[in-house]
Amino acid sequence: MKKNLAFAQSGGPTSVINASCYGIIKEALKYGIKIYGAKFGIEGILNDNLAEVTNISENDLNLLRYSPSAAFGSCRHKLKDEDFEKICSILDKHNIGYFIYIGGNDSMDTAHRLSEHMKKTCRDIKVIGVPKTIDNDLVNTHFCPGYGSAAKYIASSVREMALDAEVYAKDIVTIVEVMGRDSGFLAASSALARDNVVNSPHLIYFPEMSFDEKEFLDDVKTVFKDNHGKVFIVASEGLKNKNGNYIYLKEQKADAFGNIQMGGVGSYMKQLVAENISKRVKVVELSILQRCAAHIASLADNEAAVMVGKEAVDKLMKGICDVMISIEKTDSIFSAGAVPLSEVANRTKFFPDQWIDKTNRWVTRDALDYMLPLIQGEVKVPFIEGLPKYIRFI
Amino acid sequence: MKKNLAFAQSGGPTSVINASCYGIIKEALKYGIKIYGAKFGIEGILNDNLAEVTNISENDLNLLRYSPSAAFGSCRHKLKDEDFEKICSILDKHNIGYFIYIGGNDSMDTAHRLSEHMKKTCRDIKVIGVPKTIDNDLVNTHFCPGYGSAAKYIASSVREMALDAEVYAKDIVTIVEVMGRDSGFLAASSALARDNVVNSPHLIYFPEMSFDEKEFLDDVKTVFKDNHGKVFIVASEGLKNKNGNYIYLKEQKADAFGNIQMGGVGSYMKQLVAENISKRVKVVELSILQRCAAHIASLADNEAAVMVGKEAVDKLMKGICDVMISIEKTDSIFSAGAVPLSEVANRTKFFPDQWIDKTNRWVTRDALDYMLPLIQGEVKVPFIEGLPKYIRFI
Repeated sequence: MKKNLAFAQSGGPTSVINASCYGIIKEALKYGIKIYGAKFGIEGILNDNLAEVTNISENDLNLLRYSPSAAFGSCRHKLKDEDFEKICSILDKHNIGYFIYIGGNDSMDTAHRLSEHMKKTCRDIKVIGVPKTIDNDLVNTHFCPGYGSAAKYIASSVREMALDAEVYAKDIVTIVEVMGRDSGFLAASSALARDNVVNSPHLIYFPEMSFDEKEFLDDVKTVFKDNHGKVFIVASEGLKNKNGNYIYLKEQKADAFGNIQMGGVGSYMKQLVAENISKRVKVVELSILQRCAAHIASLADNEAAVMVGKEAVDKLMKGICDVMISIEKTDSIFSAGAVPLSEVANRTKFFPDQWIDKTNRWVTRDALDYMLPLIQGEVKVPFIEGLPKYIRFI
Repeated sequence: MKKNLAFAQSGGPTSVINASCYGIIKEALKYGIKIYGAKFGIEGILNDNLAEVTNISENDLNLLRYSPSAAFGSCRHKLKDEDFEKICSILDKHNIGYFIYIGGNDSMDTAHRLSEHMKKTCRDIKVIGVPKTIDNDLVNTHFCPGYGSAAKYIASSVREMALDAEVYAKDIVTIVEVMGRDSGFLAASSALARDNVVNSPHLIYFPEMSFDEKEFLDDVKTVFKDNHGKVFIVASEGLKNKNGNYIYLKEQKADAFGNIQMGGVGSYMKQLVAENISKRVKVVELSILQRCAAHIASLADNEAAVMVGKEAVDKLMKGICDVMISIEKTDSIFSAGAVPLSEVANRTKFFPDQWIDKTNRWVTRDALDYMLPLIQGEVKVPFIEGLPKYIRFI
């Protein structure tokens, strides 16, 4: 009897995580097996809370591809020892022999531990990981699906806000706070906003560089003077001082993986500027908008998300497991590969030091050349009655 | 000798204020006159700081139509007595006999006072007003260009954020703060987000209704209980208590360095919820994003903005002045009309009391029927290298 397939989504959602589910379902349908989406990540397996999508309509499948958030729900669940056998029993109950976990580095750890358990207990259940994160901080892959769309949103919004901010013949310091706890890829993407019309942002602050108040104020003063009182700053939520401490924390409480909820860098910078340079300071936190604005997702990113989903199914059917599907780039073509989960789990890719232009608080040409292909193309989100139409299964 | 034409943009920008300039230029070009855009609103006239756009290319004109912010700059300048003659001398210098002011109710006051001055001093300079505001608070017009696009952005973003917010099987109270100091049209537009998939927002708070802490907490507790700990709230920045004071002032007191400006309602509500219901509260301020996200502007709104710009030129050429171009709706067709500036200046349209469903903190069917036509259709913003391409003349 053919084994069935289940997938689950984990961690913070992105604008294209559902496109990977679309890819998985599309591909798995070819094998004539039952397909299940676990609700709320691995907790959906633990609680036997599955949505069977074998008979999903073409229309719903298309809606799924372009819907933001995790359409089957997500979790931040760290597996306990007693969870493993429980998971196996639920998978056995539904004759599931293939399990795909879509997530970031914490989730790749979960997938790896699960895979190890299957080997150790000689279970015929194959586990594979599919990358997903707006932070782009997974190692051993050219990029992570989710990042391209977040980058496109950030660059587009920064361009629009920069035009808005400079509308009056008055001083204005605008500070935009973006996500990226440890990794500066999201902050870097704002550099794409600059063109022959918009010269913002003027200053970008990366979590990879220690933050110094005096240097910051000197930077802002210089732009303020050179650019007629108009300064546009983009800062990562994860800025740290030279001692390695976050410069501002809104919430101290850590999640199950020890991650701290970030936010507050913008307000902190506002206070510095207001006290030392100008009272006209505006802070915009892009918050969850940057990971859910699916109406302006990147087509290249969406296609890559579909590709890694499809590839995960193909690899499983070939008997390959305990790997994360990776993205490789040859010339200007993205293709799918595979890397051992053990080499990805719990590791963090940082924005390369050599891509930071430290003097100008900017990025190098190499960084721009890396990011540009990831934001190309616009998705065809269906609009009904003037609004983007989405779907979910929870 | 034919008289030339000048226009200026005033007040806070919108996603379609430049579409009105597009309409003005397109129409004025038919008359073989010179066309000037004043830089930074009426200050551009006072300072003789004009951009001549008579020879604008088709490509630039198309970019202008879809660009956010005020492409010629804006101001919040209240005319002083000594300004009037200065303005006349600059207009005379360039042989300008037609002046169009695009703005909100303050700007319509400026246009009216200017027009009165021209009549009083027997000048052959005709002044006309063109409506613009995301707040939709100008009287005597079916709606204001700018509102439709802000409404479309708010509804789309609320729908996307609602999906994102409910992704975990955990409690979460999300509070989205929107603009609209005195008028609840922007807050109301979030109601459009609700469909057969998304049941958010659950509660909408209008500036037209006095805010009471106890009532608010009761509302939130009820939804929290009925909806498994998931609550999505939209609040206007301009909420007032029963004494008519802005409720954010309480928050403002705790803020040692800030200027008095709008914003803070979300943080204030967060504190209330965190202290009384749940610590898991997220606040998103849509800030300037809601007035500059031109990439998701409403086509109906953009077309109306073009229409009022064109109509302003036609009215002027027919000798009509001292009016604001209005929008009228017959069946499902929007057309342009004209109303005396004196009847528009400094007045505020509120969100109609009978459109508020007070029991459910929601809007009535009539309100939805009013808003829906304003968000229809998607604009064709040109994308270059993955990003929306915009233009400006300052």
